[in-house]
Amino acid sequence: MFFVSDNAAPAADAVLSALARANAGLSAPYGKDEATKRVERKLAEVFEREVAVSLVTTGTAANAIALAQLTAPWKAVICHEEAHVMHDECGAPEFFTNGAKLAGASGLDGKITPDGLTALLDRDFWTPPTHVAPAALTISQATEAGTVYTASEVGALADVAKSRGLRVHMDGARFANAVASANVSPAELTWKAGVDILSFGFTKNGAMAAEAIVVFDTALAADLAERRKRSGHLWSKGRYIAAQIEALLADDLWIAFGRRANASADRLARGLEARGLTLAFPRQANEVFVHLPAPVDAALKAAGGVYYTWSSEAVRPERQGRPGDVFARLIASFETTDAEVDGLLGVVDQALVAA
Amino acid sequence: MFFVSDNAAPAADAVLSALARANAGLSAPYGKDEATKRVERKLAEVFEREVAVSLVTTGTAANAIALAQLTAPWKAVICHEEAHVMHDECGAPEFFTNGAKLAGASGLDGKITPDGLTALLDRDFWTPPTHVAPAALTISQATEAGTVYTASEVGALADVAKSRGLRVHMDGARFANAVASANVSPAELTWKAGVDILSFGFTKNGAMAAEAIVVFDTALAADLAERRKRSGHLWSKGRYIAAQIEALLADDLWIAFGRRANASADRLARGLEARGLTLAFPRQANEVFVHLPAPVDAALKAAGGVYYTWSSEAVRPERQGRPGDVFARLIASFETTDAEVDGLLGVVDQALVAA
Amino acid sequence: MFFVSDNAAPAADAVLSALARANAGLSAPYGKDEATKRVERKLAEVFEREVAVSLVTTGTAANAIALAQLTAPWKAVICHEEAHVMHDECGAPEFFTNGAKLAGASGLDGKITPDGLTALLDRDFWTPPTHVAPAALTISQATEAGTVYTASEVGALADVAKSRGLRVHMDGARFANAVASANVSPAELTWKAGVDILSFGFTKNGAMAAEAIVVFDTALAADLAERRKRSGHLWSKGRYIAAQIEALLADDLWIAFGRRANASADRLARGLEARGLTLAFPRQANEVFVHLPAPVDAALKAAGGVYYTWSSEAVRPERQGRPGDVFARLIASFETTDAEVDGLLGVVDQALVAA
Amino acid sequence: MFFVSDNAAPAADAVLSALARANAGLSAPYGKDEATKRVERKLAEVFEREVAVSLVTTGTAANAIALAQLTAPWKAVICHEEAHVMHDECGAPEFFTNGAKLAGASGLDGKITPDGLTALLDRDFWTPPTHVAPAALTISQATEAGTVYTASEVGALADVAKSRGLRVHMDGARFANAVASANVSPAELTWKAGVDILSFGFTKNGAMAAEAIVVFDTALAADLAERRKRSGHLWSKGRYIAAQIEALLADDLWIAFGRRANASADRLARGLEARGLTLAFPRQANEVFVHLPAPVDAALKAAGGVYYTWSSEAVRPERQGRPGDVFARLIASFETTDAEVDGLLGVVDQALVAA
Repeated sequence: MFFVSDNAAPAADAVLSALARANAGLSAPYGKDEATKRVERKLAEVFEREVAVSLVTTGTAANAIALAQLTAPWKAVICHEEAHVMHDECGAPEFFTNGAKLAGASGLDGKITPDGLTALLDRDFWTPPTHVAPAALTISQATEAGTVYTASEVGALADVAKSRGLRVHMDGARFANAVASANVSPAELTWKAGVDILSFGFTKNGAMAAEAIVVFDTALAADLAERRKRSGHLWSKGRYIAAQIEALLADDLWIAFGRRANASADRLARGLEARGLTLAFPRQANEVFVHLPAPVDAALKAAGGVYYTWSSEAVRPERQGRPGDVFARLIASFETTDAEVDGLLGVVDQALVAA
Repeated sequence: MFFVSDNAAPAADAVLSALARANAGLSAPYGKDEATKRVERKLAEVFEREVAVSLVTTGTAANAIALAQLTAPWKAVICHEEAHVMHDECGAPEFFTNGAKLAGASGLDGKITPDGLTALLDRDFWTPPTHVAPAALTISQATEAGTVYTASEVGALADVAKSRGLRVHMDGARFANAVASANVSPAELTWKAGVDILSFGFTKNGAMAAEAIVVFDTALAADLAERRKRSGHLWSKGRYIAAQIEALLADDLWIAFGRRANASADRLARGLEARGLTLAFPRQANEVFVHLPAPVDAALKAAGGVYYTWSSEAVRPERQGRPGDVFARLIASFETTDAEVDGLLGVVDQALVAA
Repeated sequence: MFFVSDNAAPAADAVLSALARANAGLSAPYGKDEATKRVERKLAEVFEREVAVSLVTTGTAANAIALAQLTAPWKAVICHEEAHVMHDECGAPEFFTNGAKLAGASGLDGKITPDGLTALLDRDFWTPPTHVAPAALTISQATEAGTVYTASEVGALADVAKSRGLRVHMDGARFANAVASANVSPAELTWKAGVDILSFGFTKNGAMAAEAIVVFDTALAADLAERRKRSGHLWSKGRYIAAQIEALLADDLWIAFGRRANASADRLARGLEARGLTLAFPRQANEVFVHLPAPVDAALKAAGGVYYTWSSEAVRPERQGRPGDVFARLIASFETTDAEVDGLLGVVDQALVAA
Repeated sequence: MFFVSDNAAPAADAVLSALARANAGLSAPYGKDEATKRVERKLAEVFEREVAVSLVTTGTAANAIALAQLTAPWKAVICHEEAHVMHDECGAPEFFTNGAKLAGASGLDGKITPDGLTALLDRDFWTPPTHVAPAALTISQATEAGTVYTASEVGALADVAKSRGLRVHMDGARFANAVASANVSPAELTWKAGVDILSFGFTKNGAMAAEAIVVFDTALAADLAERRKRSGHLWSKGRYIAAQIEALLADDLWIAFGRRANASADRLARGLEARGLTLAFPRQANEVFVHLPAPVDAALKAAGGVYYTWSSEAVRPERQGRPGDVFARLIASFETTDAEVDGLLGVVDQALVAA
């Protein structure tokens, strides 16, 4: 009952096979290999347009490099106040941007709203050079609350951002789950809605370690190569990153994996709700946030359940837990099985009966 | 009717005279001059203990260098969410700390409370290396809302900070006004209450441009000289900074100036309240925040009044303005006269009668 | 005839097999997995002492993080003036150290000498805070000229460094080749000779992408976790880096690979010298630097030879090429075969006969 | 006999008077005052063209901000290997540029030559993203060896720089001495010869603390305001910097001061040469570098002489001292009198007689 993170899963078999296939013969070092070129072409196809691409191996690197492309050190990046870039990357955005400021916008269910963004930008502390001026908006898709922006929601936020001169970045650590959930094309969910740069994550979705920085407005890609090299993220044997992504893009395997993880999470969410438990956020991707009665939490842990306890200020009043509840985050990966979900639900049943 | 800032005032005569006196003969460059040494000794006397001192010419430099002494780049500094270091220094703290994070605590009247600080530190996003760990607390004294922490309030905040391993910095751009208001010794308001480093401001209080970074725990001063030089703040002719401070420290002129500015602000605040206007924050130092009825604001401006309009989320419910009011910040300096205050109040009278 | 770099080679079969074996079941994310722990223990065994270890995937990251552990931003790192950290990492050391200075020491055959180091440290530009003070020495082992410091040469340099308060780092991108060449234990070539931190490279020696930062003085490891996370080098699925290293450390496979590459380079060097060509540097590890007569260079390229042309100011007078010669760097990897070497020598023969 | 530095001198009377005059009434803070505007107009007049200007108080700040305008963090700035920016600013250029690299070019008499610059740029370590690419050339005028580039020498260097895409900065800490020595207009010595940004120093030439960053290609001034604020160099009471510069620009007082200091240095240099001593560099501005026989050095120190001992690798063979000589740097300021110079020469006479 391992629901702690989608990155606790191994790599998909297709990825391992691809690595083995890639492991033959010599190849040009430092990202000039054929596999990398094929991935670049394939991503252009996936997004239905010319793109600039830079491959790295962690989401932190992808996000921090992407944001550094969009902001000067004396400017600010707006993000949700509970965003991964704000809290979970040990200040990587500040490091890569040489000290730009992250400014948090509040928003229920982990989502920034156009009104919230407008209100924040209307505050009187954005006039340079006394203040830092806002340079970019970054949104997580799926969000840290497991919710998903629709294409029109992305578009509405990007409209506000662009009307104020801000560029738009999307942290797509769980982009596959978002695409599968939103059920629109990758293009519609990104550049067609106004996104300038996407951190396209594969690590949580079947890769060993692979992320693509996808720049839609290729004029924004000018210093990408230098930033990657200078931060130590240019692999000499680039084919081994490319091979992973190639395997996952083939036949839309990445979307299939996203769909599968979402389905497991949906089964879990429905099961928990059917047993009277309250979800803190609507289940839209592969994460389930639930208020567990203490005896249920104890029973799950006794049965070997592994998951994070959580906290959030973005929970709607009607979705708050009761005193004593344990706020839990349960994540399903592409490998999570119905049996695992049902096993967990079975333990919940027993605990509820006993209580 | 110039109430826009205490730094619009000229330097005090005593300061100019001191500069003229200092302007004779050769002197050792780069802070090794006799005037600087005298200031260092005098500050030790003022604070009743050994201190390490570094002289600079702007509050931004003093704050940013001081904070950089207290935090690693991958750590966080807690400040009030409307603090000067957060919003008004164009990211200088981020620049000097090489990208540490400023985390804002809310608090009415511009003041952080022990409970608010505790609650923030109890959030679950401070565990390294995923998260940045908190390294320091900085408080403004007087605050950006013109209020003043009592010595025991400083002590209570420092107690919380130190129990969590945080160091404490005080932004004393208006330290003179705070000391005059709190009516305790400089020692009691700082290191005796737990402050490790003070940015001791003179520029807003009669100097041309002079600020002292005063380090009470001298072990925290290790890299001060390098940070000052590397940021271009080591003057070759250091005597001209020292002379200003020396003139203001003599005979406690700085406290007299602080008291005088506070008194003018008090006269102004009482006058406004007597005329039925609402102060947004209690007047405790040399700043008055008031909700001006629109006709009053218009009349003041027509009469040549100069001041900033303001906004804040730290205003108590009972101190909110009415719709249409202009939220104004009026600052008195050591040079503000009763006649100027009364002149302003006279215009208010006329406007209220006309309305 | 691919002699362009040891990182053009694929990963060793043993490494791929290890990745496949690692790809089973769930495992704790972010470097807390069992494979990482085993590697840490194994490295302690290899170096015959307690060590602190941090795993990353590029030599640039390993070097830059290691150097950042050893220097403040306002200090300097001494390296050979043609060192990889100086010229080939796009300023990564400056990025990770937040702007420390690299200062180049000259030295024939790519090696810094104790006298050269002493002379540089005796220059009059190291007194803080005007000047940056030297904080660390970094040496490459094997060097960028393909030469190898003996254990006593390392010790002599470290003695000078430590007598001046400098810490010592070793860039071991080709540490395996150096150990194989010097024929001493890893411990003797590092900490027993005074090295504080080693960048232990595996990528050029059979890994896909894996480097270990090995800290011998564990007190110097304090911020290692934060630096790795903050720079985006903490893998969520850490087992896949660990597995590579584990496979190469097993049964000293890494030394066997180093020895094999060295032997191929030796065969190549002897063959070239036997044909009258001049080596620019003595062949001591897996790199051969040779002055190719232009017709030989042309013939090799016509035959599909791939290698870098080079330049260096560290060539001894007696090892200079003749006008018109092409200065070539030829690198052998653990996969280079005698047949490949002999094939190249055959082309040289033909070219020399034709000339 | 104080010849240690031109910044040991006090401020000129004209400067002090200007400060006193400026000290009346209120004035707009943060560089929006009238005095600053007048200086900006006056500098446009001095340089016979539109310029963008930013006033700061140290040469280190002026240089570091100017260089940061010209280079990305992953690029390099070429300077003379003994330049002030390289050695005497505690890494300020690296701090302000967020880690760009300074690369030193050699050159006799402290001057870079077009051939030397070309040779350095022809080295093979400038190709991004592996290497840092060169972004700017900075030259000191007068140089650290007290020599002066002629306008045509500046032009020749700028031609090389611009043909390779580099921008050109001039460190004019002693610009007045250079203009007085070269006897051409400020325009001819700067932008007409290809200089993009000048650090125009006043501190060593009669100011208390004042330097102007003068940007000739105003497109390069885009982020100047933010860099100054963020580094703590924006004074709230800007009139006090402007007043100093205004006083020195009036009636070309700055050039008169430069000429006077040069004349004193000339008198000193001729006197020393007439006594058989060897100058290490030709005397062209206000600095004299001389090899003092040890007894002369001892006699001078006994008589209260204060000056720095020096070292340089840029001394021509025919200008080297004899073993045992003390390499001394003697600086004349605008305040140095003939009597002081003759006093020093008198001590030399006595020492030579005694020897």
